[in-house]
Amino acid sequence: MHRTHTCGELRLSDLGKTVTLSGWVQKSRDLGGMTFIDVRDRYGVTQLAFNVDDDQTLRAKALDLGREYVIKVTGTVIERSSKNNKIATGEIEIKVSELDILNASALPPFTIEDETDGGDDIRMKFRYLDLRRNPVRENLILRHKMSQEIRRYLDGENFLEVETPVLIKSTPEGARDFVVPSRMNPGEFYALPQSPQTFKQLLMVSGFDRYFQIVKCFRDEDLRADRQPEFTQIDCEMAFVEQEDILNMFEGLTKHLFKTVKGVDLGEVPRMTYDDAMRLYGSDKPDTRFGMQFVELNDVAKGHDFPVFEQAELVIGINAKNCASYTRKQLDALTDFVKRPQIGATGIVYARHNEDGSIKSSVDKFYDATTLDAWSKAFHSEPGDLLLIMAGPTDKVRKQLNELRLEVAGQLGLRDKNTFSPLWVIDFPLLEWDEESARYHAMHHPFTSPKPEDIHLLESNPGDVRANAYDLVINGVEVGGGSIRIHDRDLQSNMFKHLGFSPEEAQKQFGFLMEAFTYGAPPHGGLAFGLDRLVSIFAGLDSIRDVIAFPKNNSGRDVMIDAPSSIAPAQLKELTLEVKA
Amino acid sequence: MHRTHTCGELRLSDLGKTVTLSGWVQKSRDLGGMTFIDVRDRYGVTQLAFNVDDDQTLRAKALDLGREYVIKVTGTVIERSSKNNKIATGEIEIKVSELDILNASALPPFTIEDETDGGDDIRMKFRYLDLRRNPVRENLILRHKMSQEIRRYLDGENFLEVETPVLIKSTPEGARDFVVPSRMNPGEFYALPQSPQTFKQLLMVSGFDRYFQIVKCFRDEDLRADRQPEFTQIDCEMAFVEQEDILNMFEGLTKHLFKTVKGVDLGEVPRMTYDDAMRLYGSDKPDTRFGMQFVELNDVAKGHDFPVFEQAELVIGINAKNCASYTRKQLDALTDFVKRPQIGATGIVYARHNEDGSIKSSVDKFYDATTLDAWSKAFHSEPGDLLLIMAGPTDKVRKQLNELRLEVAGQLGLRDKNTFSPLWVIDFPLLEWDEESARYHAMHHPFTSPKPEDIHLLESNPGDVRANAYDLVINGVEVGGGSIRIHDRDLQSNMFKHLGFSPEEAQKQFGFLMEAFTYGAPPHGGLAFGLDRLVSIFAGLDSIRDVIAFPKNNSGRDVMIDAPSSIAPAQLKELTLEVKA
Repeated sequence: MHRTHTCGELRLSDLGKTVTLSGWVQKSRDLGGMTFIDVRDRYGVTQLAFNVDDDQTLRAKALDLGREYVIKVTGTVIERSSKNNKIATGEIEIKVSELDILNASALPPFTIEDETDGGDDIRMKFRYLDLRRNPVRENLILRHKMSQEIRRYLDGENFLEVETPVLIKSTPEGARDFVVPSRMNPGEFYALPQSPQTFKQLLMVSGFDRYFQIVKCFRDEDLRADRQPEFTQIDCEMAFVEQEDILNMFEGLTKHLFKTVKGVDLGEVPRMTYDDAMRLYGSDKPDTRFGMQFVELNDVAKGHDFPVFEQAELVIGINAKNCASYTRKQLDALTDFVKRPQIGATGIVYARHNEDGSIKSSVDKFYDATTLDAWSKAFHSEPGDLLLIMAGPTDKVRKQLNELRLEVAGQLGLRDKNTFSPLWVIDFPLLEWDEESARYHAMHHPFTSPKPEDIHLLESNPGDVRANAYDLVINGVEVGGGSIRIHDRDLQSNMFKHLGFSPEEAQKQFGFLMEAFTYGAPPHGGLAFGLDRLVSIFAGLDSIRDVIAFPKNNSGRDVMIDAPSSIAPAQLKELTLEVKA
Repeated sequence: MHRTHTCGELRLSDLGKTVTLSGWVQKSRDLGGMTFIDVRDRYGVTQLAFNVDDDQTLRAKALDLGREYVIKVTGTVIERSSKNNKIATGEIEIKVSELDILNASALPPFTIEDETDGGDDIRMKFRYLDLRRNPVRENLILRHKMSQEIRRYLDGENFLEVETPVLIKSTPEGARDFVVPSRMNPGEFYALPQSPQTFKQLLMVSGFDRYFQIVKCFRDEDLRADRQPEFTQIDCEMAFVEQEDILNMFEGLTKHLFKTVKGVDLGEVPRMTYDDAMRLYGSDKPDTRFGMQFVELNDVAKGHDFPVFEQAELVIGINAKNCASYTRKQLDALTDFVKRPQIGATGIVYARHNEDGSIKSSVDKFYDATTLDAWSKAFHSEPGDLLLIMAGPTDKVRKQLNELRLEVAGQLGLRDKNTFSPLWVIDFPLLEWDEESARYHAMHHPFTSPKPEDIHLLESNPGDVRANAYDLVINGVEVGGGSIRIHDRDLQSNMFKHLGFSPEEAQKQFGFLMEAFTYGAPPHGGLAFGLDRLVSIFAGLDSIRDVIAFPKNNSGRDVMIDAPSSIAPAQLKELTLEVKA
């Protein structure tokens, strides 16, 4: 037998017991008469003690143990003379009588401790060693717990988990598909699903009513820090529902998760329309852990011959509370921030609300005290506040100010990882205009239903049609999104037309779905959470990478196993494929 | 709101309530003064009543409803005059006051009833309609329940579900991989996993200790009735264990599933060595719902100048209890059965144990009554029994007799779908000789550990080395299998050598795993269940197809969505690929 207890289990109440433990050597200390070894497993650390007066062979063996050796020891639980209250087993130690080396270990390329000396690259290559570190393992334990709770909740609500296929059909809409050549059907390809969207809708047509699946999805996109080629969705769909039913159900799930996994009472999730989110935060995923809502200033900023404001479509700002003391250097840094190419603003106008009540702006030349007072009123500013103002085309300046708002809030410590501020963003536009392809794209996807009261606008003002679509945002991160779907063949067909599909293309790609709608499709809708992102928020992490056991790097490579890689010419030949350099 | 109750929910205790139901029109009957509509959802069927004396418009609307129309009705729960005790809602009906058609339906291509008139092909094409039928839906509900119970059990045993990657590396060992071209790494390919084998072993190296995952796996094989290109495994691994620990753990899971899902007490699972299974049943997955074990007859059959037996390596037979009355025609049919090319036997010798105690064989010319009595003793036969005997090379004749045994048992009704006979088959050979490639292959996979006491045979008699490998067999179906793994770098390297890998190939394919073994790999082992097969056994089905929501056909096609299919030339170009016809 390899163990009677884990390394996190023994307490004072176990004194005198003969136990066997197995685990990894965390560290060893030789203190004159005594040798101490910390042995570690998934559950904790236990101190092993070897006395100089006891078995010398045993102690010599213990002294030879290197870090990360796998050992098995048998011994007696005794009370520690100097207790360690930082660990659960800190009141006891094991007086060892037998020691087996189950496997030796070479010196690890980085230290296996909470704070490691290993850089990102080396830790990715030796991911299996990085996974030994407590913080990384804790992330995956958290992920397991959340997945279990999600399933428990949805099972309790009569959802059925149904597995949908991974080898499906490539579609031109949306992101790029990964494809899989079919040997049995030469020249043809499967695609890996970007989501099980059409299948879950077919399950609704089948009467499954309440479906979910925690499922891998795939997108062949150029990667960013928070994107992975394969990612996991909590994919859900319900029939015979309206938007309200879906929001309530998944608000319930979210609250349940926060309560059971983090012990946090989330409270009711507020709702905001897409238009308000853009107007107040310049983002469809506002971080509402703090206020600093946008204030529109056209009324008070225009008409004073300041050319930048005169020429701008929108003058808009935020009130950075208690930041009047920002130095010139800090303000310059903020200006540099918004001027970075990825933000692309021309500058910031600022105004300090001084302790004496006066307002001092960077554009005093154009604005007298009375006008600045009006600014102050618009911002509800108080002495000590700093007003940061930008101007430009409406959509653009809102996005720029959103970046500034997040930056300032970060500096002020307002983006606390232990505060959770959820928000439903609703009433998304159905379509968005894409300059490059000069046509409308579906903002969510082509199966999203327009709001019935807006359908009449589809022909005349397609850009004004709102969708029954919604996102769940937490702390400025979109963790989920969904919509009420179209369940009418003609409306779906019309939607494809508006998205630039020819009737033949629509039929070829989605004929099966439109045909399904002719056999009694119920009203339905759903939502998908990004599990990786949800876990990373629970874990207080910015990136999803560390909530994934074996992530890929930014080139889509698994550097540990060295994938992707070349394949044998015979494999290519069987697939009737040739690689053209 | 679409419904206050489901169609399976209302009872006499709900009399007088105003309710709203939504669902599909199952059927309608017009009986003079009354129109009855059965409305169906996932939960059941409820009868709707429309009285001729009531609202004529409403009744006319009801009469116009076609099968599979999606409707929403509001009405009052009333007691039925003629009750239907076959359905849970059979004591009530709804006196309808409002009727909305949520969606019309074209006439379905087959009837949506428990017994349908639709053939396989049409039901695959309209899978979403086939899924409406109770038996098909029940299979998927069963699958959901089993998955939930599996997770509950393993979570309770401290297993962590960890998701391993789907985009991995192609390896030449085992079945053919599906590959995925990488756009970001031109000319390189990912592979889809045949199992997460190496990743779960790395998780053990990481100290995860107890891992599981219900996970899709992929094999590009020519398909048979019970194979699918994508299938689902319950993949498990444990560290610091021996074979006994694993058998106990997963016997526990199996018993838990049978108990909670089917209410069946499975009892202790017997164990049998591979050698015994081959000797007694000619199969490494014997159906032990019935006896009919093989009887070896060389002692009593040889030495009597019957050339077939004289020349055979092994003479072997089974006792078909109470089959002495088989007609000549039935016996000829059995002979034809074993002569089929896929079995390839030359014939059957039979002997009847007559009611008067005498034995009458088809080879009386060679055997006298005394010898036939010795046969009878060997078979423990009784009056009324039929002895069926075959001869040939040992391995071959055992496999042939296995087929005959199953065929006869099927005819005798001994393979009852409601009887469950589990068996652990243990002590599998480590290697099997492959004539075609003239080398040894791993019987399980290259990571399986030889039994320590057999390691010394690796060089001299590799075929005699037994592995710490085991299968769980239920009713003659292999539902799971696994092994204790190698955790020593040198032994793993040696194993690759025996499997015909050059050191360079071994390093290229599995260098990461062998390197991981140098950093403190614990002893570990595991097991994987085939979820599809396990569910099909619970459902009493021979094929796995009907426990999969959207299965592929024998050409690997999804005929519903028409996948695989051709992809755009631009997609191929981005992947630097060309299709060569």
